[in-house]
Amino acid sequence: MTALRETVTGDPVPARFSINQETVKQWSLPQLVRGCTAAGVSAVGLWREPVQGYGVAAAAALVREAGLTVTSLCRGGFLTTSDPDERKARLEDNRAAIEEAATLGAPTLVLVSGGLPPGSRDLAGARERVAEALAELGPYAAERGVRLAVEPLHPMFASDRCVVSTLAQALDLAERFPADQVGVVVDTYHLWWDDTVAAQIARAGAGGRIAAFQLADWVTPLPEGVLLGRGQLGDGAVDLRWFRERVEEAGHTGRIEVEIFNPALWDRDGDEVLAETLDRFRRHAFGPAPA
Amino acid sequence: MTALRETVTGDPVPARFSINQETVKQWSLPQLVRGCTAAGVSAVGLWREPVQGYGVAAAAALVREAGLTVTSLCRGGFLTTSDPDERKARLEDNRAAIEEAATLGAPTLVLVSGGLPPGSRDLAGARERVAEALAELGPYAAERGVRLAVEPLHPMFASDRCVVSTLAQALDLAERFPADQVGVVVDTYHLWWDDTVAAQIARAGAGGRIAAFQLADWVTPLPEGVLLGRGQLGDGAVDLRWFRERVEEAGHTGRIEVEIFNPALWDRDGDEVLAETLDRFRRHAFGPAPA
Repeated sequence: MTALRETVTGDPVPARFSINQETVKQWSLPQLVRGCTAAGVSAVGLWREPVQGYGVAAAAALVREAGLTVTSLCRGGFLTTSDPDERKARLEDNRAAIEEAATLGAPTLVLVSGGLPPGSRDLAGARERVAEALAELGPYAAERGVRLAVEPLHPMFASDRCVVSTLAQALDLAERFPADQVGVVVDTYHLWWDDTVAAQIARAGAGGRIAAFQLADWVTPLPEGVLLGRGQLGDGAVDLRWFRERVEEAGHTGRIEVEIFNPALWDRDGDEVLAETLDRFRRHAFGPAPA
Repeated sequence: MTALRETVTGDPVPARFSINQETVKQWSLPQLVRGCTAAGVSAVGLWREPVQGYGVAAAAALVREAGLTVTSLCRGGFLTTSDPDERKARLEDNRAAIEEAATLGAPTLVLVSGGLPPGSRDLAGARERVAEALAELGPYAAERGVRLAVEPLHPMFASDRCVVSTLAQALDLAERFPADQVGVVVDTYHLWWDDTVAAQIARAGAGGRIAAFQLADWVTPLPEGVLLGRGQLGDGAVDLRWFRERVEEAGHTGRIEVEIFNPALWDRDGDEVLAETLDRFRRHAFGPAPA
């Protein structure tokens, strides 16, 4: 209801905003809920580990009682193994993640596919195993009101984290399944460099596949390991407004999650980071384009 | 003639091999020439800075007298600036690079396009300025027997080094010009993650656009700045044999350069690194596929 009220008072920006928990990782779950309430932020993206640490049912009650919308749960996936026992364990863990999403009322479970198995160079085979796992998990998720969202990660993660590197690949996978079972994540950090991304966003929208839209900026130099180098909105190379407009044209006018992995943000006061992030979101994803 | 003799003696591998100077950066130019001769390596890829340091004409004489083939000169490019004075200076520098390549007898000048200008988020505009520069430089190069080779760099370099991130993009650029003016570089390090790369290699071959084929392996974790993290052949995720077969199917049966930027190789004895690299080349790009 917060979202609606904000729209009515003439400021649509907070009504579109969702803060991914990892952006303010310094906060506990109760701190996150208190901080969002204080800042007028009405939606959050959650991660499994802190939710499990607090207790899934307790976390669900906490966010529900605060009136917060849960836009997504991160993350399932890591489905590329060729070892039968490991595969069984991974599927089981993903079913648990689906149940956690359902308990939290999160419509979307973000899936990071997984990298190449140790010693393997077979990208095509790894991608096919992701498809096989989606076939098993998709119906299980849809029965519980949760949609799996395949997230293409930047190609720099292809060997060790995610063999799905482009939105086209993610859609090739997702489109093998019904749209209520498998969608995709559009994340500016991972996709900004791709000159085919506008066409692929349109394709995703036309098929009803945009399950989540996430923002982070691209800044260099990348840190060692490249995982924790995402930039605050406006600090980097990504034309966030352009992305938001393309995603809206494709029919996704719902929540936009800001998900920034950056230790410099985690070292600061959470309230300050949240206020800055909302301000940057307003100016760089929505404000007037620079002259 | 070395290459021919090697083919006749039944070992085609050294006849395909070229060592890029940067792989054994610890060597001066005379050391490189001596080391190649001692190892039976008959081709080198050179870089402008060490060649200029030695003197371009002297370097050309040195490699010619040693009977070495120069497969490419690295590098021109950095053509994305929107500042008129800087653009003029960059074009001038590229014309100098073309002349250096001609002096060295290098048929190919590798071009790294350049990143986004400071503060810009306009990838499409930057790419268009690369095309404009190619239109100016292409005829100048062809008149001197040199072909410009647009190198797509891994998308992790898109903001600060190269706005051309895929082989498809490089071909979209190159194909605006005659094939004797502008070709492309196929480098496994930059392209290995791309599920469309086989089709794009075939496209490049059909159009006679493969100006250089370079090998390096992909290893993680990436170092800070991600520039110097390339892996020795066989140490990483890239199926080098698969790439070599695709490039051969596309009609390129010429030299293959090994170009690895890795300080761990530079800390070692150059002869040892060259011998290891040739051995890895034999086993991972040519040897029988593992069972």
